[in-house]
Amino acid sequence: MGGYDAEVVTDENYVLNIQEKKNLAGVAPLLCAGITTYSPLKFAGVKKGMKVAVVGLGGLGHMAVKFAVAFGAEVTVISTSAAKVSEAHTLGAHHFVLAKDAAALKTYDSSFDVVLDAISANHDYTPYLNLLGLEGKLLVVGLPEHNPKALPFALIKNRRSIVGSMIGSIKETQEMLDFCFEHKIYSEIEKIPMASINQAYERMIKGDIKYQFVIDMSTI
Amino acid sequence: MGGYDAEVVTDENYVLNIQEKKNLAGVAPLLCAGITTYSPLKFAGVKKGMKVAVVGLGGLGHMAVKFAVAFGAEVTVISTSAAKVSEAHTLGAHHFVLAKDAAALKTYDSSFDVVLDAISANHDYTPYLNLLGLEGKLLVVGLPEHNPKALPFALIKNRRSIVGSMIGSIKETQEMLDFCFEHKIYSEIEKIPMASINQAYERMIKGDIKYQFVIDMSTI
Repeated sequence: MGGYDAEVVTDENYVLNIQEKKNLAGVAPLLCAGITTYSPLKFAGVKKGMKVAVVGLGGLGHMAVKFAVAFGAEVTVISTSAAKVSEAHTLGAHHFVLAKDAAALKTYDSSFDVVLDAISANHDYTPYLNLLGLEGKLLVVGLPEHNPKALPFALIKNRRSIVGSMIGSIKETQEMLDFCFEHKIYSEIEKIPMASINQAYERMIKGDIKYQFVIDMSTI
Repeated sequence: MGGYDAEVVTDENYVLNIQEKKNLAGVAPLLCAGITTYSPLKFAGVKKGMKVAVVGLGGLGHMAVKFAVAFGAEVTVISTSAAKVSEAHTLGAHHFVLAKDAAALKTYDSSFDVVLDAISANHDYTPYLNLLGLEGKLLVVGLPEHNPKALPFALIKNRRSIVGSMIGSIKETQEMLDFCFEHKIYSEIEKIPMASINQAYERMIKGDIKYQFVIDMSTI
């Protein structure tokens, strides 16, 4: 049954060591959302003293918040949903800004070292580029349908960068897993039986998900 | 007469040391086109063994070619004008690709460490992103009227970056000037009397310029 099998034979170079034995459901999404956000944050050198914004608080964004906080950064969540203020703080974020509040965003002009863009809806890069200070980086992991635009004047100011990133190597994935086990970082999940998969899909489309669905494979 | 004066009083922190005494007309554009291309190429760590493409062979692009060659890189010029092949080689470039030749560009897929985009005409970033290898950088110094688009899938592949850059500091400008004097690098210019300025403007609009007009201030 391919990926749905309980046991598979594979090359030892592609096996990861999972130290966690209890919360395996909270570990599963680390292999996608975890490494996808860990890798670019590491690449950008996120550490204590840096200011990081995470835009889009979903499956990817909530992991980015956990990692950026664990790396010691001062973390701001930018979201279109005012309902996510308390969630953002529960995840460890220090500040919250409503994406639609232009005046509030304006106060953050040129103030972040890193903005992680985990937005899958169509959007342009310019408003988030404007938030970056000197040599700031917009880390792009969201994949909208339409190609985002960037205002060249916003790019050249402060020598800003837009940096794309896609999962990570096996070596870095093991490093990420070990970091998670050391710091007790898991994905926030809702475990569902296989029979609920169509309902879960409908809920995902509506945004009714915190933050990942994990299928209990014993129910297959 | 402001910037058109023969003598000005200024703060010593904003004075540059020009060692060159003869070819001052070839030095003048270094303070704009020179530092604008030198700074991002240095920022990207261009050096021997690296592959660099320069897109757009105008006032900025021709300086980028000279610097990238002087830094030891293997340099490819990408231009919409087939007439620029011999000019590209005269400037020191090792290869030339016609921007409209999709098949030729395709052979350069994922093959450059750095692509310097000096295009002022409207264009998208995607075709040039596709030319970048692992952790390759698209250095943006051109300022088109319409905001360029970037395909997110092209950005995340190879962990590519789009990096904006705008002139450079006084300190780096002096470093650039000293590098130019040591390596006998000047801007390619055509000196004109002030009376020809309107004609020069018309020629610039038509692209009839190699590569910078410099006004002889003694003719004012």
